[in-house]
Amino acid sequence: MKGKLYIVGVGPGSPEMRTIRAVQAIKESNVIVAYTTYADLVKDLTDGKEVITARMKEEIYRARTALEKAMEGNVVSLISSGDPQVYGMAGITLEMMYKNKIQVDFEVIPGVTAGLAAASRLGSPLSMDFASISLSDLLVPAEDILFRVRKAAEADFVIVLYNPINKPLLEKAMKIISEYRKPETPVGIVKGAYRESEEVFTTTLSNWREYEDKINMITTVVVGNSRSYLWGNRILTPRGYERKYSLDVNT
Amino acid sequence: MKGKLYIVGVGPGSPEMRTIRAVQAIKESNVIVAYTTYADLVKDLTDGKEVITARMKEEIYRARTALEKAMEGNVVSLISSGDPQVYGMAGITLEMMYKNKIQVDFEVIPGVTAGLAAASRLGSPLSMDFASISLSDLLVPAEDILFRVRKAAEADFVIVLYNPINKPLLEKAMKIISEYRKPETPVGIVKGAYRESEEVFTTTLSNWREYEDKINMITTVVVGNSRSYLWGNRILTPRGYERKYSLDVNT
Repeated sequence: MKGKLYIVGVGPGSPEMRTIRAVQAIKESNVIVAYTTYADLVKDLTDGKEVITARMKEEIYRARTALEKAMEGNVVSLISSGDPQVYGMAGITLEMMYKNKIQVDFEVIPGVTAGLAAASRLGSPLSMDFASISLSDLLVPAEDILFRVRKAAEADFVIVLYNPINKPLLEKAMKIISEYRKPETPVGIVKGAYRESEEVFTTTLSNWREYEDKINMITTVVVGNSRSYLWGNRILTPRGYERKYSLDVNT
Repeated sequence: MKGKLYIVGVGPGSPEMRTIRAVQAIKESNVIVAYTTYADLVKDLTDGKEVITARMKEEIYRARTALEKAMEGNVVSLISSGDPQVYGMAGITLEMMYKNKIQVDFEVIPGVTAGLAAASRLGSPLSMDFASISLSDLLVPAEDILFRVRKAAEADFVIVLYNPINKPLLEKAMKIISEYRKPETPVGIVKGAYRESEEVFTTTLSNWREYEDKINMITTVVVGNSRSYLWGNRILTPRGYERKYSLDVNT
């Protein structure tokens, strides 16, 4: 019996934001391993399958279970929201395979990560080079995180902040960014992109605290670069076309 | 007649890597505007529609045409490969709307950007904070690009390089990164991820030039961080679980 492990990114949360490959892989699987919330997000696809759920901070358990089930010969989908690499299940699972010399066929199926999903609701803040940073200090020392925030600010990257629920660390990160960028730099706060509960806010570096209560586990924060600007409730980051070309349209 | 503009990310190139929303939007449209190659990539969906194609470096023309068609009352899909924000069509099109005060309903549909697609073929290099940088100096001064490369290297970001076709600039970028990272730092070179012509190579910072001839318009280069390692032809970037947890599996 030859098992197979799909490490599947199912996107930000709505069925429409899944890739066709993700849907195929889940349908093909007889075992689904998922964090409880994500099991709910894919339950239209998992009828009649063995569904193993586990709560947050049980990534180790989920990765181990998915591997064991695949080694037993099952076709397993290990569900990650967004993209499975970006703060998801791919890294830990492949590390476990490497360290335990496990040989099981696997495929990492990429998905629309929260940063791309959130940014698409804001217009086009990510049209220039950007950095993706997680503010979770469970596995990474806070000082390392803040060092990267500083370098990203210095480099004028658009900055996408995942896991901003750690308020003291978010506060420090925004303060560091403010050393390098103007108070009117646009900030986008997107809660539950593409879920029914979706809320989108645009503000500025000097005013982001007004929306502090909107920041929870499923919020993504996008900070513009030095050239980003607000257009109503949208954020645009110019790439430089206007230096070379006319952008006129006959209206 | 009320027009609508979809700025659609169709992912890296294979139909399976599209989101369901992207397929819906294209099906709903009566006009498709696309770079010639991408028009081919979606031609299974565009039968019977008006398809307007234009070559590279005609982004201005494509954005303007899509807007004009939408203002005439059409439902238009402006096709971008990958994600439309990330070096794609969303930025320029929304800038054009802003500058010309155009009011047309629009939706930016995110997609699996080349960096995520390429990285998924490499295992899981993007499991820690990363920076996305385009090496195209058509719109951005080369010195700005290299400054960001330096800061990203200093910050220990995993680095995703888009548009590495500019060889002298790629050479300079890799040299800068080598000042901060060991010669054995893993480098992934992915050509045409998810297309029939896909080729995946893993090498190191000291040896990447061996694959220089694989680098073209549809190549993405991923450089690991200081903790990334090679596992056969895969690249893993540990997030830090092994500091806190046992990764043992009963094999």
